[in-house]
Amino acid sequence: MRFCRFGEGRLGLVEGANVRDVTAALDVLPGCRYPLPTYDVLIANLEEVAERARTIAAAPVLPLSSLKLLSPVANPGKIVAAPVNYGKHAQEVRDNPALHNNNPALLKSIHTIGLFLKATSSLTGPGEGIALRMLDRRNDHEVELAFVIGKEARQVSRRDALQYVAGYAIGLDITIRGQEDRSFRKSPDTYTVLGPWLVTADEIPNPGALDLQLSVNGELRQKSNTRDMILGVPELIELASSFYTLYPGDVVITGTPEGVGPLAPGDTIEAFVESVGSMEVKVRAASEAPAAGHA
Amino acid sequence: MRFCRFGEGRLGLVEGANVRDVTAALDVLPGCRYPLPTYDVLIANLEEVAERARTIAAAPVLPLSSLKLLSPVANPGKIVAAPVNYGKHAQEVRDNPALHNNNPALLKSIHTIGLFLKATSSLTGPGEGIALRMLDRRNDHEVELAFVIGKEARQVSRRDALQYVAGYAIGLDITIRGQEDRSFRKSPDTYTVLGPWLVTADEIPNPGALDLQLSVNGELRQKSNTRDMILGVPELIELASSFYTLYPGDVVITGTPEGVGPLAPGDTIEAFVESVGSMEVKVRAASEAPAAGHA
Repeated sequence: MRFCRFGEGRLGLVEGANVRDVTAALDVLPGCRYPLPTYDVLIANLEEVAERARTIAAAPVLPLSSLKLLSPVANPGKIVAAPVNYGKHAQEVRDNPALHNNNPALLKSIHTIGLFLKATSSLTGPGEGIALRMLDRRNDHEVELAFVIGKEARQVSRRDALQYVAGYAIGLDITIRGQEDRSFRKSPDTYTVLGPWLVTADEIPNPGALDLQLSVNGELRQKSNTRDMILGVPELIELASSFYTLYPGDVVITGTPEGVGPLAPGDTIEAFVESVGSMEVKVRAASEAPAAGHA
Repeated sequence: MRFCRFGEGRLGLVEGANVRDVTAALDVLPGCRYPLPTYDVLIANLEEVAERARTIAAAPVLPLSSLKLLSPVANPGKIVAAPVNYGKHAQEVRDNPALHNNNPALLKSIHTIGLFLKATSSLTGPGEGIALRMLDRRNDHEVELAFVIGKEARQVSRRDALQYVAGYAIGLDITIRGQEDRSFRKSPDTYTVLGPWLVTADEIPNPGALDLQLSVNGELRQKSNTRDMILGVPELIELASSFYTLYPGDVVITGTPEGVGPLAPGDTIEAFVESVGSMEVKVRAASEAPAAGHA
């Protein structure tokens, strides 16, 4: 199944070029009082929601192209990211001072660096777009396979790891180049795009053989396959869950292949991950208001 | 006022050696449905809760020493941390290979590095204790002044910054030494202790002149004053809010002074920040269950 969120927090099932509005299925989710759960309530109850969604006979059908798509995960407890997880991207960083900025921390391998965090407040949906800051500095696109944790994961071995995945999406890890800590310069508002929807894990038995690519204004910039990841999805879950507990709704973005490049206000990104789909994302300056949306 | 959380999510007002149980005041907080707020609902409504708490005539009074204290913030959207924000700590890191591990990223100044993130899943209260992982590596204590954001802050100038603070607490930034990204090796479960309570900002007009110290098993390890911070609270808010939006309940820990040192299972930490108070925190191995708690 392909769950999308759109408009003012509505829930849809993507079926070809259409979306069935199954917002009513959210009624199965429990109401919450303070202190609130520290996991994503939809992802933690995804099977119940799916079951209810199937029973909604008269769900309105909307054309996908008319919808403002939001992040399919609303409340991730954390956004975990994999640095330099493709060999050719590691090489392009080493070769290009504009990427490494003489920052030695950027020249080490993922085996040394481990993982890093992005602020959950940086999360946005493809229909909301990217608002660039610090336009005097280089702001880059990084396309990545993203996955969403489905159940609490602690000290999980790579062999069992895929059982903990609720589903997959496309992640864009927007990045200000420079000397600051990764978790700072990659965390401005809108610098993590998740979309266009969540494809449940049953549809992608092997996340380690997916084409992915990214174009800017129609020009192909990044093109690779997830088989070139240094640490695959199971290894990333093993590594992350050896340091901390992963909770339902935690988002992991798995690293970007070579071809990262600068963005500017006015750009349009088209990102694609095989078996997930594609999404278009508009880039603006942070000082500008978002474009008047559709539904 | 001094708000504490204790037991199974109860709310208290600390008055000397006693706590008035004002959990009933949480009734003023709105119920929530998915998608949940991405800020802390208590901190966002702290004045309403305080007002209601004052009207609870027959609040049970409990001895503070009998309570298992939780983090006073339950649902921070992010935990922001300041690296090397005391000059003498920066010097001890430079001088000691066990602290910098030949990692050049650790030898730069906060002006270069900016801020970093810790996982919100690392948050714990003083009564819950610290569960050390990776006991073959050095795990250090770092005592810090912590503050909690009270209202949305975007592009705030240092001059206006203190208006955005809801209150103060003690933060412990527990740290595995090594080569990994800070946001990884400082984010295991229980590696961020916040406590013993939240002192509302009106009680601390100047957070830039507070003694702080930390002892382990009665031995004094760290002793300084927040006037030695390189970036003070207003400057940290200005810097953070120039990169991303801060939300009610976001926690900022302001960096540790010199004297960081290793922890081992069985240790007891005593941490103190002037005008906030002191707290005792037990250290165990992650493989051990937490000690049987009191209320």
